[in-house]
Amino acid sequence: MKTIGHLINGTAHTGSGRSQDVYNPSTGAVDKQVLLASKATVEEAIAAAQAAFPAWRNTPVQKRARIMFRFKELLEQNAEEICRLIGEEHGKISHDAMGELSRGIENVEYACGAPELLKGEHSKNVGPAIDSWSEFQPLGVVAGITPFNFPAMVPLWMYPMAIVCGNTFVLKPSERDPSSTLFIAELLLEAGLPAGVMNVVNGDKEAVDTLLQDKRVQAVSFVGSTPIAEYIYSQASANGKRCQALGGAKNHAIVMPDADMDNAVSALTGAAFGSSGERCMALSVAVAVGDAAADALVSKMQAQMQSLKVGAFSDSSNDFGPVITKAHQEKVVGFINSAQEQGAEIVVDGRRPTVSGYENGFFVGGTLIDRVTPEMTCYQQEIFGPVLLVVRVDSMQQAMDLIDDHEYGNGTCIFTRDGEAARYFSDNILVGMVGINVPLPVPVAYHSFGGWKRSLFGDLHAYGPDAVRFYTKRKTITQRWPSAGVREGAQFAFPS
Amino acid sequence: MKTIGHLINGTAHTGSGRSQDVYNPSTGAVDKQVLLASKATVEEAIAAAQAAFPAWRNTPVQKRARIMFRFKELLEQNAEEICRLIGEEHGKISHDAMGELSRGIENVEYACGAPELLKGEHSKNVGPAIDSWSEFQPLGVVAGITPFNFPAMVPLWMYPMAIVCGNTFVLKPSERDPSSTLFIAELLLEAGLPAGVMNVVNGDKEAVDTLLQDKRVQAVSFVGSTPIAEYIYSQASANGKRCQALGGAKNHAIVMPDADMDNAVSALTGAAFGSSGERCMALSVAVAVGDAAADALVSKMQAQMQSLKVGAFSDSSNDFGPVITKAHQEKVVGFINSAQEQGAEIVVDGRRPTVSGYENGFFVGGTLIDRVTPEMTCYQQEIFGPVLLVVRVDSMQQAMDLIDDHEYGNGTCIFTRDGEAARYFSDNILVGMVGINVPLPVPVAYHSFGGWKRSLFGDLHAYGPDAVRFYTKRKTITQRWPSAGVREGAQFAFPS
Amino acid sequence: MKTIGHLINGTAHTGSGRSQDVYNPSTGAVDKQVLLASKATVEEAIAAAQAAFPAWRNTPVQKRARIMFRFKELLEQNAEEICRLIGEEHGKISHDAMGELSRGIENVEYACGAPELLKGEHSKNVGPAIDSWSEFQPLGVVAGITPFNFPAMVPLWMYPMAIVCGNTFVLKPSERDPSSTLFIAELLLEAGLPAGVMNVVNGDKEAVDTLLQDKRVQAVSFVGSTPIAEYIYSQASANGKRCQALGGAKNHAIVMPDADMDNAVSALTGAAFGSSGERCMALSVAVAVGDAAADALVSKMQAQMQSLKVGAFSDSSNDFGPVITKAHQEKVVGFINSAQEQGAEIVVDGRRPTVSGYENGFFVGGTLIDRVTPEMTCYQQEIFGPVLLVVRVDSMQQAMDLIDDHEYGNGTCIFTRDGEAARYFSDNILVGMVGINVPLPVPVAYHSFGGWKRSLFGDLHAYGPDAVRFYTKRKTITQRWPSAGVREGAQFAFPS
Amino acid sequence: MKTIGHLINGTAHTGSGRSQDVYNPSTGAVDKQVLLASKATVEEAIAAAQAAFPAWRNTPVQKRARIMFRFKELLEQNAEEICRLIGEEHGKISHDAMGELSRGIENVEYACGAPELLKGEHSKNVGPAIDSWSEFQPLGVVAGITPFNFPAMVPLWMYPMAIVCGNTFVLKPSERDPSSTLFIAELLLEAGLPAGVMNVVNGDKEAVDTLLQDKRVQAVSFVGSTPIAEYIYSQASANGKRCQALGGAKNHAIVMPDADMDNAVSALTGAAFGSSGERCMALSVAVAVGDAAADALVSKMQAQMQSLKVGAFSDSSNDFGPVITKAHQEKVVGFINSAQEQGAEIVVDGRRPTVSGYENGFFVGGTLIDRVTPEMTCYQQEIFGPVLLVVRVDSMQQAMDLIDDHEYGNGTCIFTRDGEAARYFSDNILVGMVGINVPLPVPVAYHSFGGWKRSLFGDLHAYGPDAVRFYTKRKTITQRWPSAGVREGAQFAFPS
Repeated sequence: MKTIGHLINGTAHTGSGRSQDVYNPSTGAVDKQVLLASKATVEEAIAAAQAAFPAWRNTPVQKRARIMFRFKELLEQNAEEICRLIGEEHGKISHDAMGELSRGIENVEYACGAPELLKGEHSKNVGPAIDSWSEFQPLGVVAGITPFNFPAMVPLWMYPMAIVCGNTFVLKPSERDPSSTLFIAELLLEAGLPAGVMNVVNGDKEAVDTLLQDKRVQAVSFVGSTPIAEYIYSQASANGKRCQALGGAKNHAIVMPDADMDNAVSALTGAAFGSSGERCMALSVAVAVGDAAADALVSKMQAQMQSLKVGAFSDSSNDFGPVITKAHQEKVVGFINSAQEQGAEIVVDGRRPTVSGYENGFFVGGTLIDRVTPEMTCYQQEIFGPVLLVVRVDSMQQAMDLIDDHEYGNGTCIFTRDGEAARYFSDNILVGMVGINVPLPVPVAYHSFGGWKRSLFGDLHAYGPDAVRFYTKRKTITQRWPSAGVREGAQFAFPS
Repeated sequence: MKTIGHLINGTAHTGSGRSQDVYNPSTGAVDKQVLLASKATVEEAIAAAQAAFPAWRNTPVQKRARIMFRFKELLEQNAEEICRLIGEEHGKISHDAMGELSRGIENVEYACGAPELLKGEHSKNVGPAIDSWSEFQPLGVVAGITPFNFPAMVPLWMYPMAIVCGNTFVLKPSERDPSSTLFIAELLLEAGLPAGVMNVVNGDKEAVDTLLQDKRVQAVSFVGSTPIAEYIYSQASANGKRCQALGGAKNHAIVMPDADMDNAVSALTGAAFGSSGERCMALSVAVAVGDAAADALVSKMQAQMQSLKVGAFSDSSNDFGPVITKAHQEKVVGFINSAQEQGAEIVVDGRRPTVSGYENGFFVGGTLIDRVTPEMTCYQQEIFGPVLLVVRVDSMQQAMDLIDDHEYGNGTCIFTRDGEAARYFSDNILVGMVGINVPLPVPVAYHSFGGWKRSLFGDLHAYGPDAVRFYTKRKTITQRWPSAGVREGAQFAFPS
Repeated sequence: MKTIGHLINGTAHTGSGRSQDVYNPSTGAVDKQVLLASKATVEEAIAAAQAAFPAWRNTPVQKRARIMFRFKELLEQNAEEICRLIGEEHGKISHDAMGELSRGIENVEYACGAPELLKGEHSKNVGPAIDSWSEFQPLGVVAGITPFNFPAMVPLWMYPMAIVCGNTFVLKPSERDPSSTLFIAELLLEAGLPAGVMNVVNGDKEAVDTLLQDKRVQAVSFVGSTPIAEYIYSQASANGKRCQALGGAKNHAIVMPDADMDNAVSALTGAAFGSSGERCMALSVAVAVGDAAADALVSKMQAQMQSLKVGAFSDSSNDFGPVITKAHQEKVVGFINSAQEQGAEIVVDGRRPTVSGYENGFFVGGTLIDRVTPEMTCYQQEIFGPVLLVVRVDSMQQAMDLIDDHEYGNGTCIFTRDGEAARYFSDNILVGMVGINVPLPVPVAYHSFGGWKRSLFGDLHAYGPDAVRFYTKRKTITQRWPSAGVREGAQFAFPS
Repeated sequence: MKTIGHLINGTAHTGSGRSQDVYNPSTGAVDKQVLLASKATVEEAIAAAQAAFPAWRNTPVQKRARIMFRFKELLEQNAEEICRLIGEEHGKISHDAMGELSRGIENVEYACGAPELLKGEHSKNVGPAIDSWSEFQPLGVVAGITPFNFPAMVPLWMYPMAIVCGNTFVLKPSERDPSSTLFIAELLLEAGLPAGVMNVVNGDKEAVDTLLQDKRVQAVSFVGSTPIAEYIYSQASANGKRCQALGGAKNHAIVMPDADMDNAVSALTGAAFGSSGERCMALSVAVAVGDAAADALVSKMQAQMQSLKVGAFSDSSNDFGPVITKAHQEKVVGFINSAQEQGAEIVVDGRRPTVSGYENGFFVGGTLIDRVTPEMTCYQQEIFGPVLLVVRVDSMQQAMDLIDDHEYGNGTCIFTRDGEAARYFSDNILVGMVGINVPLPVPVAYHSFGGWKRSLFGDLHAYGPDAVRFYTKRKTITQRWPSAGVREGAQFAFPS
């Protein structure tokens, strides 16, 4: 059985004795073990990062960026292997894994632009012959803590930008699917990164708490569920670190009466069931305005879902794979049960999917539930499974009120052809990422990713321009030169 | 006796019954009382701000900016009255008060540029016929909590930008010198600001805690001492608010052997004793490199300090005034005593200044202490009085190590003619605001103000470009329009 | 009879002997004479500007900006007088003149943000211990040449930004309505501008050619007709100056079948007839897609135009006033005649308006011409009068082809509710300023104004961010400091 | 004998019959012929570019950028071959060719950041519910005309950015060393660029004039000598194109008395003689302040130049190679002769270098001429050979006046340790690119390259941020949506 360890100071590292099973969710089998770093092991990683900082910070930014150019090449060359590792441990189908990786590579591409992104602001003559400028200097050691659902992409949101800005990094990825993350980090070293600049520690709460408490860690980026995000944010803040912590979501799509319904149905199918709904940007609630729109939507969705195919990661003809654990499978089914009990209508039922040859896999089939109301459990919580809820309202304002009243504010979308409806919606809705006829409005790598309300704690969003600001601190210099120097021919006297 | 109340929803407000003395530090007399807001009063202010938000947010930014243009005019027209109010309650001389006000007005001028500053980022064709853009939307109700030492300037660092960005504001100024702050806020209303957009509550910990706990408050800006800054930051963060909290300082100036010594002495005199040293950017430690430089510096400082004049705020020939309270006067004298006891050399002794006619004023004279070492109490803590310490070191590296080892990292300065020394210093020193032959490197209003280490908690600095980001949140919109609309002549069908 | 002279080096100046009549177009009377500067007079102005440059360039940018703040106040205080002067010589009604002035003041407001706008780009460590930054330095003496139709606004597009960037200026306004321009320039001096920084010379081709040929003039901004713009651009370029020259327009509005027709009619009425159509952004062609849309548009326009009121500038109940000269009045009528002769349908005929009491005024009434085709003279040329042409097409693509085939590409607009149509139009149309349900898409002062094709010669548009780049030149500095200086304690040896 | 043709619409092309010899300057031999495009051939290239434009413009910017990522990889993989081609036809040694190529690749790296660089400006609520934004759209077909001295680098300044911005390109490289340029363009196609987006035509004045006159060419970038630059600029401008034309240089270095003389001598040696001085950024004049500095400089230069090695491109131990042609060799020698005749002192004489085995090569040895005065021919003109002039002055102001009085203003440098001298120099000198102890202050790729005075015609500099603006045009869209659409439930009526 394979053992997955750490990457510290440029070399593989096994550290302490605790470990944990890593499952293949398509088969239910345990093929690997992941080591769980002790406090001492994490501190070793932090020390390596701290030691690597001074030289890395002084490396010209263009040189730092060139390592990212090379990293991109290696990621592309190794894409197939990365997708296989993701599939084995996470369960997502290769086309989905490739989509994830592509989004991750976009962030590496953006980091290649560091020389432009790190430009400071220069002001001439802020006073007579006085100049002033602001530099954006790296912080030092920064940490990332990332979730199971995007083992390649979410870490790539963080460390390429942190590192290209001159910081050194300690990453604690999800212990459920650690292999692709570790493999990718090794590629970065292969791209020429000096030892110690990038470190990976696998682990659990002990590792997390060490990162949150260690004085040498200057900043923490986190993506996961809202309760953990809140814990991370308040702990890191209380310890004087800067922190951005991204949490959960419940993303609604409004379907207006004038929507192009075929387009909406096609978009919703991918956005609700892709990656088994285990995405913080998954569209999990469709809000239809008017019963006519609702009836059309539900009947067309039902038809479309006939051809949805759930199955093992290794068959690329599948649309989506298993969920991450047995426990999570049961939780998702529990949400569907509760919806039924609380009076909603199960239009398409995915509770007992047949995946022949993979009877122990953690599968849930695509599920469509109509006539959901805001009081239901399935509406109030994040399901994180392949389940689409339909809520029926009478007006666009009601639809918007629903969205604004939910605790989360990550993503949302409207389907309409009407410019006015789109503008009113995008202007007023209390959600950070808004789609207009775009079901998964994940910002491209050159914008930034972040929800509102309890979907994000912190001022600055993930990746893109905000990440540059998050991973640097401003230093402002004001300069005046005394006259009577060499220009006027004076010999400036040393005190003697 | 005059009573100073609150400004809520556009009108003067007296609120609850508690109150506190306001002193005239030049005379030691109590001429006024300030009301201390109860929780209910603060909540009333928050409610007013909340109610004013929707209309204000939708007001075109150019219109919002025009109120700032008018506000600037009113500040200039009322400058004399503002300086008188500052002098009476804070004690600073009118030229110093005018300097403070001018710096505050610069921030209003910067806020006038809001239409440019609030521009979002627009990307065409992020995918085929898909566009994406990021907007910077206001947060809602934001709060400011400000210190006694700059009753005009520090509030003006905060609310003009917060308000012009579309937020509404609740300010809790220092209860020691509240009159100028309140008067200025009234001018903003006179400039045309709608009622409720700007509110002022005087108060103490009860008011502060209400602001920190109320769910409607989205963000908190604070300037004060480090222990309070840390409290504010961890409380606000734990309550899910964004927060920037600026704390204390111990600003060192390095005097190199090649410095223009007359220039350095003149600069240090103003920077150490101006405003009685009650500035977070005061230069309180001179680090001389080599005994030759130290001896020259001390002897020239001693000579220059002969003409330093401390006295009442009302006489503009004075260089600086009293400190803020009797207790603070005693604390400053205590620091000087401790220096003497711990072996430093009191070169110029300001412990018993004579200010005839103002025998009860809280005065401390300009004090110069040589041969201070890092172990001494006077070195380790922030004195916040007219006291300049001289530390002697052998090399520039020693001087920089001293600075980097101190817990604060607000401002610092080097006196030299040498380009290399200046560049090495400004690049490597762990301090947020750096002067090169500039003793008070306060960034101009179009840069941003912020220290490093324990001088600032949060990611974004005060005023300038960082304030725009602090007072807005990013919303990213991704838009695609389905085809077959009116352009192709199709009648788009409503579901029927 | 009043004589209007020049403003050179801070004082009124009469210069050479040539002069020209200035008309009151509402009455047809000549009440004033304007002096026409000789080459020598223009050179005197250039010399004054050249002499004022070094000190002005070195004035801190914040101080330069503060003069713009004061200038804005004075413009607001003198608005009524300015509008009267505009009305007397140009003929526009006071509400229209006030609109013009407001747009001009917005440009002054934007110039107040110069400290932000002039920030350079600063890069740390472009190589080991090598820094590099770009500054945007002023050019020196720059010139502006402006048209009769916006005697207040167009000059304010130019010189506030040029001057706040550190340049000095020579303005040659239109000789047809010079008084308001001159009066405004005097207000700028009153605001505190040093003598010589801003100069005004009235004149004709002799003055223009002097500006184009003088080596000391570094840049020329021009707004006028296309043939003159082309002359100015090629002459200035051949003389090594930078130049931006804005020319004519023929702005089309597409009216789609789904447009809100009442809104479109109301918008078109203002955009076609306001200021007698003497605006380079006037909407002079409505392109209706489909006969149904065309019929609805024409009948509603006809109804709406019943209440259009043409008359003297002094009666603010008038909608618009006379055209600028007798000759121009005849030219506009000639275009209407030609339309009739070439087969178009004159729906509303403004050729013989009755303006009682002003029988000698240069009036043309609002005119609507249907069934215009691209071959007609009235379509091919810029009429610059209160005449709206209607062209009927079968599809949106035909409408767009019409626009793209015209030699001008200044402004355009579409009326629709459909997001897809709007996006396709704005993406593909070969026009610089595009409105979506906005008939006069003049960019706000914080964007930039400029047409495409033969409507603008040069790379950079007028006002806004482009103006900052036009009125400054980039200087890039790369800096490395040799070691072994004072920091290491070395005494650096002078050669001896 | 090899024949070098064109690259049009993705394929090799031979076109018309005229051709010209291509020399190997190290041997003096003719090994290849280059075809000279006729008007018809150039028009074919323009037509290919025009046809490729619509699809390329609509390709998402990220996809366009990815071709640049791939292009960078191919350039790195083929570096050796590129350097060999440069060496054979230009004569520069491989380390120098590799330096050139690296600088070129930096521009490709910068172009990879296009998604960030092309972001437009977005403004919410410019009026009530009115939004406005500016896009930067490509121009269409643009042309580049490039010089012999950097056959790889200068074209790479232009077309990667032009193309990544969405334009299509026609390049006319120097006919003296066309092979590396053509080879590199083929790599870009190999990287995945669609046919027709990039085209290369070899040729002479006929090709140039065709590019300048053809209406389909929207913009022209040129680098070469000042007289040609001036011709290109005035012709292109008169034909309504945007143009940037970079010309000649005479770059001075000021050597101050406090300079680190060893550093200065080492820097000057590389900057004066590298690439035989055939660089527009070559340092060709050293201005020593004071005879002491001058004497030290000359004696140290003389010593250092003992080891300078001139020879054939194929021996990488050589410091520099031949000049480009026999005629140019004679011209350089003529300048040295004239200096001698006019009274200067030839300290090191490179007129008859011995390069054994390469007796027919076009070699000139490193030459140092002291006591040059501004009246001498060698001072007034650009020599473009391995010749360093020393001018002696008494003060820094005299040195600066010399520089400012020269017609060129490309690059300059000061050697000093003094912060004040450096700041005064960089602030005031009338030169576009300034070095402080940096002898060749070529801006890095993420800044922009451009001289002042007669060294550049146009407003925008080459490469970097300015290139983004040069290769795009601003379009500003203002949008308002009429209400009463689908949001309010209204059925919007079609006219019927």
